[in-house]
Order: sequence, then C-alpha cells, then structure tokens
Amino acid sequence: MKSNDVPEIVVSRLPLYLQTLNQLLRDGKSVVSSSELGDRLKMTPSQIRRDLSHFGGFGKQGTGYDIISLMESLRSILNLNQIWKVVLIGVGHVGQALLNYDGFSRKGFEIVAAFDESPKVIGKKFGGLEVKSVDLLETAICQIPVDIGAITVPAENAQMVCDRLVKCGIRAILNYAPVALEVPESVQVSNIDPVLKLQKMTYYLK
Amino acid sequence: MKSNDVPEIVVSRLPLYLQTLNQLLRDGKSVVSSSELGDRLKMTPSQIRRDLSHFGGFGKQGTGYDIISLMESLRSILNLNQIWKVVLIGVGHVGQALLNYDGFSRKGFEIVAAFDESPKVIGKKFGGLEVKSVDLLETAICQIPVDIGAITVPAENAQMVCDRLVKCGIRAILNYAPVALEVPESVQVSNIDPVLKLQKMTYYLK
Repeated sequence: MKSNDVPEIVVSRLPLYLQTLNQLLRDGKSVVSSSELGDRLKMTPSQIRRDLSHFGGFGKQGTGYDIISLMESLRSILNLNQIWKVVLIGVGHVGQALLNYDGFSRKGFEIVAAFDESPKVIGKKFGGLEVKSVDLLETAICQIPVDIGAITVPAENAQMVCDRLVKCGIRAILNYAPVALEVPESVQVSNIDPVLKLQKMTYYLK
Repeated sequence: MKSNDVPEIVVSRLPLYLQTLNQLLRDGKSVVSSSELGDRLKMTPSQIRRDLSHFGGFGKQGTGYDIISLMESLRSILNLNQIWKVVLIGVGHVGQALLNYDGFSRKGFEIVAAFDESPKVIGKKFGGLEVKSVDLLETAICQIPVDIGAITVPAENAQMVCDRLVKCGIRAILNYAPVALEVPESVQVSNIDPVLKLQKMTYYLK
C-alpha cells in the first residue's frame, strides 16, 4: 500500500484530499466522485484517480468514493493514526500564534514543549504550555521522544537552532524562518514563508 | 522575457532562488555557479539552468551568475519593483503576528489596512496599524487600490470573507484558514496551512 517510489508531489496532495473530504463530510455528504473532488481541488478527475492508484484501489467506477473509508485509508497512509509530538523553538508572535492554535491536536499533532531565550517569555504560559529556556532544549528532548521541531526564531538564529534539533534526533522540521536550512539527507524540512507565496502570486498580477 | 507559458512549478521556484541569492550576497559572494545554487536548493544544476532559460540567458558557461544582476532580473520578472498593498482580515493570533512582522515591507509588501469583527481588537494598534471594523471593508478597499488580501479568520468565516474580497476586486489571496476557498478563475489563492505540511512529512516518518 505504501512505497517511497510515490512521487513527492503526489504525497504532498494527500493532505489536501483529506482536508477536502473532511469538508465534504461536514457538508453532509457520504460519497464523492472523482469529478466532484476535482472541481473542489482544481484538478482533473483522471489526475485524482492516478494519484490514488499509487496506493491501491479506492472507489468503484460509477459509484465514487466512500468518504469515510477513503479518509481512513489516507490517514493510515500518512501515518496519522497516532499523535505526533512537536517541540517549538521561538515564542515570538508566530510561536505564540502556533501555541494558541487548537487545530494541531485535532489533526494529529501536539506541541509538547516550547523554548525561547528571552526572560520576557520564559516561565509564561501560552496555550496552556509553559515556555522553557532554550538552554534546556537538549535535556528536554532527550527525555521525551519527539520527531518534529517547529522553528519560529528570527532568521539569523534558525540554522543554529536547526543544528541543535538535528543533533537531538529530530527528523522533520517545520521552518517559519525565511532562510533555507541546511540539514542531513535523512531530515525533512518544510518551509512556511508567506513572502515566497506572495512573490509567486505577483508574477501573475499585472 | 515573460510568458504565461512558463510552468507554474518553475514560477514558484523563482522566489526561492531570490531568497538563496540574497543569502549568498549577505555571505559576501558576488558570483555563483548553477552547481553551488543547486547544492543550496537541493536541485541539480541542469534543473536550475532549465528553469532560468524560460526567461532568457543569464550567466555564462564557466563563469556562473552575477548575483546582483540575476536578483534584479528575478525581481523584475516577479513584478517586485513596486510595493504591493495588502489588506488583512482577521486580527487574532496569526493576524497579529503578520501585522508585527517586519519582513513584508523589506520584501515588497505593505499591509495597508487590517479588519476584524471583534470589539476587543477594533481600534487597537498592531505593528503601527489601527484595526478597523470589518463592516468598513468594502468602503476602505474602494478608496485605496489593493491587489492582495490576507485571510486570517477562523475556517468557518473564510469563504464569506473571500467572497467579499473578490467582489472588491482583490486578485490574489493569501489564505491562512484551513479550508479550500472557491474563487473565480481570475483570482489566485495561496494556502498557508502548517498542518498540510506536517501531514506530508509524517508520510516519510516511520
């Protein structure tokens, strides 16, 4: 059912399918055709069928996909049948927004520790979590097995924080700093930078 | 030099090139080869040369790219030789983080107005900007020509806010709400949803 030969672009669309199926479910639907899904996702039905065919057969010709069972399969393929622990480094505005966001836990992610270097936020609570000194990062991560780190520090500190996380065994990094991080091949980085998205859109504006 | 026949995936990499060139410049470099660029961006040199060839010839075989002149060309291709005005709707944690972020203006974007429906934030200032009632959205946008809207409201309000922005003539939307927005074909949407990025990474974790 699962293979690393699946193109990365296909894998990156699976969470989008899950999000859209969830919306359809909330709209009261129980079955969806590939053309309805395509309409919502601005994709062709055949592209959707091809994406899903990487993981086996879903749905039947003419009857469409059963939404709940397709969601269960996607959650299993994406390893979302467990709660993933996340540590967050940098409790400025973005870090605070993430700590206060309740959408993570509902979708399989729990921020278990938050770190900063500033006495202004160390000891304070955000989203119920007390901020620790970044000096304690290594000790804390060794005690709790964590797979994912979220970096929300200023650009100039991001690579150093990244190096420390990698040394602690973190295998996936969500990077909010506007820099390209250097990591070993075994570590994944996903960048969240609104400016990159805006600069792409302005190409088409004019 | 510019054409809408350029594949979207190529366009979406141009801001990344710009970001990396900027880093190289700060590191004191003035020339870069496609293989150095490739190392930084985890791409092959030939992929980079192919991307850039869509926009004419840059650099010479054997001598590499002049960083400043390549950056100038990319900025011009991406229409970044002007300041783009942005309106922001939703001044919760994420909205406040964006209003306090100084990276936008340095990179060609200025948030010129912020709106919310809550009396708790209307009239307050964030990043020097006073939050207005969302009831004034249409009036305000008609007075200042704005091209880009940032949606940072809860998921359940996002489509309604989006519809209002589209009616006001907004042509590009940066959407932080975890929903797929429906827009006319002439309007671009870029989604920023950390959960989608995390769910992609967990596919490879295990």
